[in-house]
Amino acid sequence: MDLEFWFSIGSTYTSLTVMRMDEIEARHKINFRLMPFSVRKVMLDMDNVPFPPNKESKVAYMWRDIERRAASYGFPVRVPAPYPLQEFDRANKIALLGVREGWIKDYVLHTYKNWFQNGMEAGSDENLEATFKILSMDIQDILVRSQTSEIEKTYAHQTSLAVEKGIFGSPTFIVGKEVFWGDDRLEDAISWLKNQKKVNT
Amino acid sequence: MDLEFWFSIGSTYTSLTVMRMDEIEARHKINFRLMPFSVRKVMLDMDNVPFPPNKESKVAYMWRDIERRAASYGFPVRVPAPYPLQEFDRANKIALLGVREGWIKDYVLHTYKNWFQNGMEAGSDENLEATFKILSMDIQDILVRSQTSEIEKTYAHQTSLAVEKGIFGSPTFIVGKEVFWGDDRLEDAISWLKNQKKVNT
Repeated sequence: MDLEFWFSIGSTYTSLTVMRMDEIEARHKINFRLMPFSVRKVMLDMDNVPFPPNKESKVAYMWRDIERRAASYGFPVRVPAPYPLQEFDRANKIALLGVREGWIKDYVLHTYKNWFQNGMEAGSDENLEATFKILSMDIQDILVRSQTSEIEKTYAHQTSLAVEKGIFGSPTFIVGKEVFWGDDRLEDAISWLKNQKKVNT
Repeated sequence: MDLEFWFSIGSTYTSLTVMRMDEIEARHKINFRLMPFSVRKVMLDMDNVPFPPNKESKVAYMWRDIERRAASYGFPVRVPAPYPLQEFDRANKIALLGVREGWIKDYVLHTYKNWFQNGMEAGSDENLEATFKILSMDIQDILVRSQTSEIEKTYAHQTSLAVEKGIFGSPTFIVGKEVFWGDDRLEDAISWLKNQKKVNT
């Protein structure tokens, strides 16, 4: 069974899902279908600034919450991680190339590990070099092929599609017409996926 | 064991905690210590408008999410409930009188039942009359005694105290210096409470 996993690299809470993707897929016998889009564009269009400077307590809470939840899942994180990203779009366009070419999961996993465990900002030269070294791929080649007008169009299309589906944050899981927002709704989404033929909605 | 439960009547997600207060207290052998404050003031001070008109998808999601979670907890809700409240402060000042006089839990529970199950906006004359009829108390007397300058000061003090503790939303649970925001963190807060003597943080 496939579960649509909509996300942007750059979302902090998405780390909690990415880090346990493999474990979740094995345990629940599901397959994540990774759907990168620009949550930044969606939020700007909604005038939704998640963590501006005058929300210090909310920012402090976010890092502590992520730290506690990562611990409960059994993996380490170093918080606060570099945030927000300078190269948000670059990171996500590369993700779209990864979807097309089949290396998306490894790319996203190692990007987040380098970001949340090794302190390398996602999308930065440093992170990309480290990540694609692990993938044994040529980062210069990737950079050229991910900055095309075709990828740009795909990025815009995915983002429009996300809005049509009612998505406004990352990570979001979609099961039919049901939207589940947040890593803390992943288990609910999986339950819904497994029961969708039984449930009459 | 006491668990600090900070909230404002007016918060929609707080319904999920209020409706299962009794069950949670019995199951986990804990006692909620209800701490009303003005989340509206805290959010305005942060320029945090949770559900403005241009966030339609987020609002639609909120109601559906509450509906699904209420169903998973086993109680009915009628959503969307009337929102936002016209008489937010009135409802919460009465709550503070209820803390002082010991009828806070019944007041909050029936206020939310009348709001989320019977369609009566919290803080409205209709809701207050129905709620205090169940409590066998005189609503006119309650209205007089909850609109004093003393209650006003207590309200401001509670709200300042909430900010000092790093609270920015409702419901929030506090265990020592740990902040747990949202009904979906209640079980985490209870685990933390039970383990707090063992955990070294």
